[in-house]
Amino acid sequence: MAVYTHISDQDLADYLAAYDVGPARVFKGIAEGVENSNFYLETEKARFILTLFEKRTKAEDLPWFLALTEHLAKSGFPCARAIPARDGKALRTLNDKPAVLVEFLQGLSPRRPSLQQCRSFGEALARMHLALADFTEEKPNAFGPEGWKALWQGRANQAEALQTGLAARIEADMALIEAHWPQGETLQCGAIHADLFPDNTFFIGETFTGAFDFYFACTDYLTYDLAICLNAWAFDTPSEYNYSKGAALLKGYQALRVLSNGERKALPLLMRGAALRFFLTRLVDWYDTPKDALVKPHNPMDYAARLDFHRSTIKAEDYGYQRG
Amino acid sequence: MAVYTHISDQDLADYLAAYDVGPARVFKGIAEGVENSNFYLETEKARFILTLFEKRTKAEDLPWFLALTEHLAKSGFPCARAIPARDGKALRTLNDKPAVLVEFLQGLSPRRPSLQQCRSFGEALARMHLALADFTEEKPNAFGPEGWKALWQGRANQAEALQTGLAARIEADMALIEAHWPQGETLQCGAIHADLFPDNTFFIGETFTGAFDFYFACTDYLTYDLAICLNAWAFDTPSEYNYSKGAALLKGYQALRVLSNGERKALPLLMRGAALRFFLTRLVDWYDTPKDALVKPHNPMDYAARLDFHRSTIKAEDYGYQRG
Repeated sequence: MAVYTHISDQDLADYLAAYDVGPARVFKGIAEGVENSNFYLETEKARFILTLFEKRTKAEDLPWFLALTEHLAKSGFPCARAIPARDGKALRTLNDKPAVLVEFLQGLSPRRPSLQQCRSFGEALARMHLALADFTEEKPNAFGPEGWKALWQGRANQAEALQTGLAARIEADMALIEAHWPQGETLQCGAIHADLFPDNTFFIGETFTGAFDFYFACTDYLTYDLAICLNAWAFDTPSEYNYSKGAALLKGYQALRVLSNGERKALPLLMRGAALRFFLTRLVDWYDTPKDALVKPHNPMDYAARLDFHRSTIKAEDYGYQRG
Repeated sequence: MAVYTHISDQDLADYLAAYDVGPARVFKGIAEGVENSNFYLETEKARFILTLFEKRTKAEDLPWFLALTEHLAKSGFPCARAIPARDGKALRTLNDKPAVLVEFLQGLSPRRPSLQQCRSFGEALARMHLALADFTEEKPNAFGPEGWKALWQGRANQAEALQTGLAARIEADMALIEAHWPQGETLQCGAIHADLFPDNTFFIGETFTGAFDFYFACTDYLTYDLAICLNAWAFDTPSEYNYSKGAALLKGYQALRVLSNGERKALPLLMRGAALRFFLTRLVDWYDTPKDALVKPHNPMDYAARLDFHRSTIKAEDYGYQRG
């Protein structure tokens, strides 16, 4: 849940005066997104989500995120695009913070995705990757292998406090993953969401209706994005991989975009890398989030358990991969 | 902000199966209400607020609150009434907590009510009191003068820590207010909202569109409700009473319900009592709310300042009263 900033009716009226949307009739802070404040807004003409970017999202990255969602929306991929105001600018300021008005998407976030939802989601992910093939502006991944050392710096004792022996396992994982990480253009790169958990998607029934919260998006291997999603969608519990859900997601993905041999072979390592990335950032948040923060941090052990699972896999087939 | 309980898409689907509203298409935790968890819900047929009652609202009081809003809604007063499910019951259970689906109201809560909003609100308040004249079931006010001693018990040092000399002033106020508090049926009694702050109302522009959060409602003097509202609506800052706003609210109120002589004379004392009540409950919350609570407590000094102001008044005219 996240509503960090209170916006008065008067501030809102002043903000909306720049748009052609009419006056507000409904305005409610909503518990969506973690990094930013989000509000449900309804005017006579339409409904929107108003997003206020809090300090963790870098202001200088915003134009790239907005260009990305604009590109996706134009290609017909359902995602919340920012609406330009009368002067053509979508990125504005409200209460001294960067703010955008984005299109409203219908749907609910699945808590435990069904098999069919995993399949639909896999298709949507491939559709997103294909739609972004001609989005060529690049943005490095701040949480890729180059960033892991800095996240881990001084955290060994914290990991050890969570579970005896964990620090050594993490260090061994990190060394192994870094040593085998794909280099250069060996796998297809492109713009990826990099955080497409079920709670950043909407469904109506089994139908995928949209993706949002693109504020970790970056340029990286497409299969790394797929690995992040398999980690997030296909585990029934932190240590139990649901082979059928993994297979459904991969089947949906490959219905639109078939993995290359290199991508298939790299999948197990990318799964480990993705799990390590979320373990590390959650470890940092677990210890660094103030007790009175509005958003409770996620337990890093959920990803330590995934790492345990990944140590037992060898090939893409262990995740449900079948030749597309 | 308040969303204490997470409701999964599956739990929601099971809950909605009891109603004739169709499946959910939008479901978002919203930052509305302090005591309970609230969710914006949209189905194919309509939209609603889903309220989950958290522990601070007594389950045994809920039927009274629901009967009250049902009575108001039937009389045409805009408030969020609970929708009965297919079996006729409106009060249900979700995630082991009492839950209701209530009608959706359009509107925004004013942060700084305008003069015209105060006037409209005064009319609405009188309209609510008149609509409740034949709602005869009674519920004692837990935060009336009989309850103050228990709230104050052991808090003198806490008040003194906020401001030197404050404890003595509070005790003198309490003694004086209790000594002069109206007795029995000297003033008109009825069901009152007892917490009708601007953030429990909606407006579109200057037009009042509804009242909600009736979970402090009780049976008490109608003019005490008016006094609570004047305290909440007509101060520009905690120590500055806006005479014009007070006059507008009273004028709106008296357009529909003229104060009796007794009510007029009692108003200054009821203003002090209302301010003392909110000072006391805020003092308790200020010290007893855990640091990591989702809802930050209100500063009790905002009501200590109002009490300072009220010590300087003598008659209803000092609050903007003009003979109706």
